Amino acid sequence: MVELTTQDIGDLWVEGKHPDLEVLSPQPLVAATPIALMAGQRITTTDRIFIRNIQDFPEAHTVAARPIEGWEIELVGLMTPSRIVIQAEELLDMEQVEYEMVLQCSGNGRAMYPSIPGTPWNQGGVANVVFSGVPLSAVLEKHGVIIDPQVRYVTAEGREGAMGPELSDLEHSLPVADVLATSIIALRLNGEPLPGIHGGPVRLITPGFFGTMQLKWLARLRFEVSESTCFYHAVEYRVPLSPVKPGDDFEFTLDNSRPTWLIKLMSYVLEPAPHATVARGTVTVSGVAYNDGMARLEAVLVSVDRGETWQPTQFDTPDSPYAWYLWSTQVQLDPGEHEIWARAIDYLGRSQPLDGSVNWNPNGYEWTGVFKTPITVS
Amino acid sequence: MVELTTQDIGDLWVEGKHPDLEVLSPQPLVAATPIALMAGQRITTTDRIFIRNIQDFPEAHTVAARPIEGWEIELVGLMTPSRIVIQAEELLDMEQVEYEMVLQCSGNGRAMYPSIPGTPWNQGGVANVVFSGVPLSAVLEKHGVIIDPQVRYVTAEGREGAMGPELSDLEHSLPVADVLATSIIALRLNGEPLPGIHGGPVRLITPGFFGTMQLKWLARLRFEVSESTCFYHAVEYRVPLSPVKPGDDFEFTLDNSRPTWLIKLMSYVLEPAPHATVARGTVTVSGVAYNDGMARLEAVLVSVDRGETWQPTQFDTPDSPYAWYLWSTQVQLDPGEHEIWARAIDYLGRSQPLDGSVNWNPNGYEWTGVFKTPITVS
Repeated sequence: MVELTTQDIGDLWVEGKHPDLEVLSPQPLVAATPIALMAGQRITTTDRIFIRNIQDFPEAHTVAARPIEGWEIELVGLMTPSRIVIQAEELLDMEQVEYEMVLQCSGNGRAMYPSIPGTPWNQGGVANVVFSGVPLSAVLEKHGVIIDPQVRYVTAEGREGAMGPELSDLEHSLPVADVLATSIIALRLNGEPLPGIHGGPVRLITPGFFGTMQLKWLARLRFEVSESTCFYHAVEYRVPLSPVKPGDDFEFTLDNSRPTWLIKLMSYVLEPAPHATVARGTVTVSGVAYNDGMARLEAVLVSVDRGETWQPTQFDTPDSPYAWYLWSTQVQLDPGEHEIWARAIDYLGRSQPLDGSVNWNPNGYEWTGVFKTPITVS
Repeated sequence: MVELTTQDIGDLWVEGKHPDLEVLSPQPLVAATPIALMAGQRITTTDRIFIRNIQDFPEAHTVAARPIEGWEIELVGLMTPSRIVIQAEELLDMEQVEYEMVLQCSGNGRAMYPSIPGTPWNQGGVANVVFSGVPLSAVLEKHGVIIDPQVRYVTAEGREGAMGPELSDLEHSLPVADVLATSIIALRLNGEPLPGIHGGPVRLITPGFFGTMQLKWLARLRFEVSESTCFYHAVEYRVPLSPVKPGDDFEFTLDNSRPTWLIKLMSYVLEPAPHATVARGTVTVSGVAYNDGMARLEAVLVSVDRGETWQPTQFDTPDSPYAWYLWSTQVQLDPGEHEIWARAIDYLGRSQPLDGSVNWNPNGYEWTGVFKTPITVS
């Protein structure tokens, strides 16, 4: 097993010492990939995938695979039978399903909100990856499990423990309909056995949902009528249902807020990189864009005059509804300081606010605003 | 009192026999105003306001005011005291608040959805009007009423009765926070006493909400923990929380659906009128656009090449967040058949789908798609 220090984790991405490298905090493990390093990659290579682990799991401090032998997953709740235990190893012999999909921290972009505590993600808490594994529905079928129609949520627990005796153990609930329709117990990431640091040997993956909902080191699934009341699900990783004034206090309840479930529409400029200097004239601008997979993107627009006018970009629609789109266009730029703005719109009519802080929320989740990339034209 | 027949109601709008006049059904009263008749009106004149009354109230078949003397409104529920009765007449002496606001049937645009039963509204179930009256919060304060913090909904009932013994009596629930923040008991419409046909003498008005939530002939308000289980609130006038395939059956429950509360982002071309013939060259295009008042509109865009390119339009931002915007621009058109498309986007990043039927729902509510106005250029 390759043992990693926090600094090693940083080194995973940057092939040397990239000046934008940020290991945001030593523990729990957090590190972001400078967004420009993703340019030219349809699939984000595993060494550039951001890391955000709420709880520390020392034996998973590794980019190597973790042994699957002996790993058990318990299924309990309103189901018949009321409890089964499956061996993760048996999943290896079942039919595998693959998702090319965006993996994004729900706190990505937090640094753009005013007055927010917490990990100051800018744009680097995102990747486009391939997970593969076995549909949970196939596991249920194989074991003859019948889910009670009263069940509304599936709550997932990982094997890692709480960071202290006073803290909740992390778990998250997902709508049962989505879990039964699309969730897989993932065994592989980008074609390789799932690295320990990314949840290996087994992780619950539900495409279209934020990263925090992709529970690592899957140990237990509960089929229940109600959502988890765990701190991380019932208080953190939620947004108020009604707008809150920036800086205002807000007491989260299950009724006045919702979980950070579905990924928000986003677009990023990957090229030119932020603060780059480029030559005058025709400048190629490219980037990525995505949503929660509910509808195709209709357009990605670029503005170099601070939103006065927008020009369409070119892209191919990926086969997977959960994957990001690679878009590009060319703009004409005179010498001076410029900002490149990108904005996507999808076939549901969802777009991005010019100032994403209109969606301010106390923990700074679900940034969906237009990113503004400053560049210098020489 | 001016007594009206159904045909009279139609005549209210059309100043003669406009060919597009539609009195959609004789009973309950329904009639739409051809959208082009609203061109050039910042405030829709009262004789052009659409009518949609779910229940018949024969004594309100009049464009005249209805007597306010003796009209009582009961307030009951989780409040201290647990019941009060107020005289509507006392509202005349209290401070009045005015809202310029969009009044829109939640079924407006229904004719654009495939496979939908129900009143085939096209674009005419909308108006921009001025309601004035007394904030409900001021009435509560005057009478020393304290609302219990457990209350989550305010359910409003009107004095009209059900259309048959087997039918529910219409009522609707609104979130208590919105009601206490913005609802008024309206006494006047466009500066005149509220006409009987539009809910006079008193109507509960909450700006930003669809027309069905603006309860006419207000008789009773209930302050409760739960939503109404009335058919019109718990089954009709709801949309599923998750997408439904067009034509599929759906059994509405309070949990799997939500009320048609907040007005959706919309834009309309008022000029040229649909199917108009205009001269080649520079063509003035104008219309209206609005949302639920949660954020200003950022832009209204027009396309004359079926969405390939979009050009911005000019507008002033109205003082009232709930009012519609009057926008206009000029386009260059060659002879032939054309379509004019309009699309708004607001500062929350909300826009309109090119094909609004992506939001298909069994009762055809909340159309927010781009309207496509066919014209001929000679």
